[in-house]
Amino acid sequence: MTIGFIGLGHMGEPMASNLLKAGYKVHVYDVAPEAVKTLVKKGAIAASSIAEMAEECDVIITSVQTGQQVKEICLSQDGIFSHAKPDLLYIDCSSIDVITASTLHAEAKNLRIAMLDAPVSGGVSGAQAGTLTFMVGGGDIDFARAGPFFQAMGKKIVHAGPGSHGQAAKICNNLLLGISMIGVCEAFTLAEKLGLDKKTFFEISAHASGQCWAMTSYCPVPGILENVPANKHYEPGFMAKMMLKDLRLGQHAADMVNASIPLGSLTAELYELYVNSGYGEKDFSGIINFIASKEHN
Amino acid sequence: MTIGFIGLGHMGEPMASNLLKAGYKVHVYDVAPEAVKTLVKKGAIAASSIAEMAEECDVIITSVQTGQQVKEICLSQDGIFSHAKPDLLYIDCSSIDVITASTLHAEAKNLRIAMLDAPVSGGVSGAQAGTLTFMVGGGDIDFARAGPFFQAMGKKIVHAGPGSHGQAAKICNNLLLGISMIGVCEAFTLAEKLGLDKKTFFEISAHASGQCWAMTSYCPVPGILENVPANKHYEPGFMAKMMLKDLRLGQHAADMVNASIPLGSLTAELYELYVNSGYGEKDFSGIINFIASKEHN
Amino acid sequence: MTIGFIGLGHMGEPMASNLLKAGYKVHVYDVAPEAVKTLVKKGAIAASSIAEMAEECDVIITSVQTGQQVKEICLSQDGIFSHAKPDLLYIDCSSIDVITASTLHAEAKNLRIAMLDAPVSGGVSGAQAGTLTFMVGGGDIDFARAGPFFQAMGKKIVHAGPGSHGQAAKICNNLLLGISMIGVCEAFTLAEKLGLDKKTFFEISAHASGQCWAMTSYCPVPGILENVPANKHYEPGFMAKMMLKDLRLGQHAADMVNASIPLGSLTAELYELYVNSGYGEKDFSGIINFIASKEHN
Amino acid sequence: MTIGFIGLGHMGEPMASNLLKAGYKVHVYDVAPEAVKTLVKKGAIAASSIAEMAEECDVIITSVQTGQQVKEICLSQDGIFSHAKPDLLYIDCSSIDVITASTLHAEAKNLRIAMLDAPVSGGVSGAQAGTLTFMVGGGDIDFARAGPFFQAMGKKIVHAGPGSHGQAAKICNNLLLGISMIGVCEAFTLAEKLGLDKKTFFEISAHASGQCWAMTSYCPVPGILENVPANKHYEPGFMAKMMLKDLRLGQHAADMVNASIPLGSLTAELYELYVNSGYGEKDFSGIINFIASKEHN
Repeated sequence: MTIGFIGLGHMGEPMASNLLKAGYKVHVYDVAPEAVKTLVKKGAIAASSIAEMAEECDVIITSVQTGQQVKEICLSQDGIFSHAKPDLLYIDCSSIDVITASTLHAEAKNLRIAMLDAPVSGGVSGAQAGTLTFMVGGGDIDFARAGPFFQAMGKKIVHAGPGSHGQAAKICNNLLLGISMIGVCEAFTLAEKLGLDKKTFFEISAHASGQCWAMTSYCPVPGILENVPANKHYEPGFMAKMMLKDLRLGQHAADMVNASIPLGSLTAELYELYVNSGYGEKDFSGIINFIASKEHN
Repeated sequence: MTIGFIGLGHMGEPMASNLLKAGYKVHVYDVAPEAVKTLVKKGAIAASSIAEMAEECDVIITSVQTGQQVKEICLSQDGIFSHAKPDLLYIDCSSIDVITASTLHAEAKNLRIAMLDAPVSGGVSGAQAGTLTFMVGGGDIDFARAGPFFQAMGKKIVHAGPGSHGQAAKICNNLLLGISMIGVCEAFTLAEKLGLDKKTFFEISAHASGQCWAMTSYCPVPGILENVPANKHYEPGFMAKMMLKDLRLGQHAADMVNASIPLGSLTAELYELYVNSGYGEKDFSGIINFIASKEHN
Repeated sequence: MTIGFIGLGHMGEPMASNLLKAGYKVHVYDVAPEAVKTLVKKGAIAASSIAEMAEECDVIITSVQTGQQVKEICLSQDGIFSHAKPDLLYIDCSSIDVITASTLHAEAKNLRIAMLDAPVSGGVSGAQAGTLTFMVGGGDIDFARAGPFFQAMGKKIVHAGPGSHGQAAKICNNLLLGISMIGVCEAFTLAEKLGLDKKTFFEISAHASGQCWAMTSYCPVPGILENVPANKHYEPGFMAKMMLKDLRLGQHAADMVNASIPLGSLTAELYELYVNSGYGEKDFSGIINFIASKEHN
Repeated sequence: MTIGFIGLGHMGEPMASNLLKAGYKVHVYDVAPEAVKTLVKKGAIAASSIAEMAEECDVIITSVQTGQQVKEICLSQDGIFSHAKPDLLYIDCSSIDVITASTLHAEAKNLRIAMLDAPVSGGVSGAQAGTLTFMVGGGDIDFARAGPFFQAMGKKIVHAGPGSHGQAAKICNNLLLGISMIGVCEAFTLAEKLGLDKKTFFEISAHASGQCWAMTSYCPVPGILENVPANKHYEPGFMAKMMLKDLRLGQHAADMVNASIPLGSLTAELYELYVNSGYGEKDFSGIINFIASKEHN
């Protein structure tokens, strides 16, 4: 059994490495030759093209930036779908829009290719540690078949529903995460300006109705939780520009299905202002400095 | 030792009752004679005026609607402060604005009256069950002295800091609660329109970075958690109009200290629209029907 | 010289009629046979297919709903671009996203087809009266060549810049229109609740710094201006669902170029709530009833 | 006939000067002795106290910062109302909240003192040039009586309605102005990022449905209109912090009368962020730099 892996960036590189560590035979492809070399040193085989990879691999995993890229990798003349082996299992681990994911699932179904959309959360550190969460959309049988590969790269694998529901679940969860994070930033900023001690307020709200993961597991205020970006000058973690990307996907999805997301849209616009101010590569919790009109420390 | 209790509404009535149950001698006062009668039947003594109560009680507790009311009860010619016994402990359990709370603390200090601001959370059911949370602002000694009375009426008592910090803590917590609640409503509405199963999405997000109390302890979607207003036609619980009141207090506090709370303000405006549509006495989680443009069930 | 017209809906039908009135020979095409018949009665020639039309017409105008539709009409195997005469001038009068407009301009340039994007404002009544405004993107020569056709259908023709700038200008203008309209609704709702006489407030603000077209030419409050939708039970005019469409195009454009439009996004979400409440086919000024929590009259 | 003037700041000083120029006898009072001296040099008489002024003047005008200050000036033991001559006409030109204005009108009525609330617009330059606009609340007879004094200080005098309606009208107008201004900033920022020429877009939108005073009389983009703050490094004009003050008054008024102002509240929060970033004394049109994430030029 051979696995092909396309897209060896910050996320893809450690994910492919973990597949190698788990003993799988892995073919790799990336537009950047350096990225390929790194994996080859760890035991991977360099594919000369996507078409060649498709002709040789039983499972192909993609991890790239945009829906447009996934579309080209899958649907172009030299792409995966035109050159797939009869029994291919195709897994897209990119975070992309629901429409593109649905389009690809439909096309895969036409061609009788098994497909899963499986966006991840957990960031670069989760990819390295093999502790990612996968939110997976697709059929039961395909989901079961993919289990071992997900296990090699992550810790928690959830089946969100049929095709494209992995993307949908991630978008909805991150919409809520973005809103909660700015909510926490506003509450702590107001609390500080009202003279409340930050630790006291944390103790109160963490055990009251304001509790949320963004506060109790990822507090944006320095000096409260250990090992969170707030205590490391907001080094990511989960970059603000990636949160912005997910929130924009939320707006597109909401437009598509006629949903109103007033707080979600405002959250996107605030992240846009934050990213445009030059902080896109800071952790997304760094937006507390924007809300409080403070310089980054 | 005698306790005076002013304000026998939905909250005050069960709170005073719990003091009686705990064995305290309680004098009561309210502008509504019916409310007084109910308490007298349970063993309370009707005070003929606030001044008379002040002259006889060692501890006085107020539980009313607005800062203006508290001000009048305390500062008018016939009010508490002009008629207080030398060792009075005055506890205001109303939810009011920080400026009024600070003004009253300053005046109390001038007159050497011990004062605590102690707004509660937990709603009518918490008041009845004696499980309220008190967020308390004031000095250490006064906080210690008030312990037994809070214990008789509640379960969790937190010392938020000096005078007015009880109000500040409650406002900041409820600001975050309001934001989280609408965030949850948006996420579930979008999820449903994208075809996700509500229970599946709950399972995913409850264990992921979108988790928050508003979802996992008070889910606004029917059919997920037992014993929440969503399963009782949104009977409160915590009324939407009370959430709106707290969010407006948040805006006032933010104005006072020059804090920006964009999501908090938008949340207040959405609750205003919801309340103005005739749903002010529904539970605050009922706003999911407004976000989803659904009729209340 | 022969003109082809594709898309004979509420807007396209009167636009094509006005070309006939101006003496042009017009071939028409629509998926709905009824729409074609109506135009044929007025002197148009029914084209049997888009390809046939392309082979016979010197100028082709499209007026459809979505960017996806324009794409298919232009780029499919049987579409305009594959069958165009050497000197074709192609004019798209649909309101679509900037990316699709840019893609089509690029493709047209490759094939040496002259193209203009020329979205309109003025609504159905403007289309019927021949008083539309055209915001046009494309080259100077093509703009000049198209002048007579625009004159036959509209009153004001502005050259917004090179390809896709017609769409860009319309999106930005309507973003501002949507924001102004809700601003006017909020100001008049607050004014009314504060007891101000609506006509007095109109007189004051119409001559002060709050003045805007949405107030002084299209006032959403009944009883102030004649001949506006507010005085006709909010019959359109410009439907709320069309305003929502333009605002969503604004969000997409902002996402594409990394612009932050906080008020624009919130305006879109408020229109989404209004449309989802069942008022999508009311005039967009009817949102004053939503802001004021009033029933439509 | 003697006029008393209290509050000789940026606005009050030129207003009082214009009364002197018009030939009135003016008594002045301010907590800052320097401000008094300046006016005395111009022919004013220094009042030793507010009480003394009240005992001597037929008309008293106040121009101060906050409702709290006006309250003290009027209602304290040594204030205007306790020492007023029988026929006093009291005019408050400060911009304050509607509740305080109403309270003062009620108290004045009790004491049979004629009162007008008359907030101004036009800024420091308007005060100097004597071209202010007065929005006036109060009775018809008092409005008529005050005419000559307003004429001496301003150009446009509008009667908004009975007591407090001057404040109400100004708050509602400036709410709309703030919203329009940010709308213009968003539209031009998006237009620029989409590649539109700013002058071309101005020409289009200024004659289309996006037109508003904030664009066509006060354009926040440099290089379009002459003599606007955008061409003078955003020197005020109308300071951002004063716009923020008016928007916060709008939120308070909306809270008081249960109005929802979603765009208005968001506008206030964006101005709060702008002011907190250190630009409170820039012109309010400078917020375009915040929206566009640009440095001030």
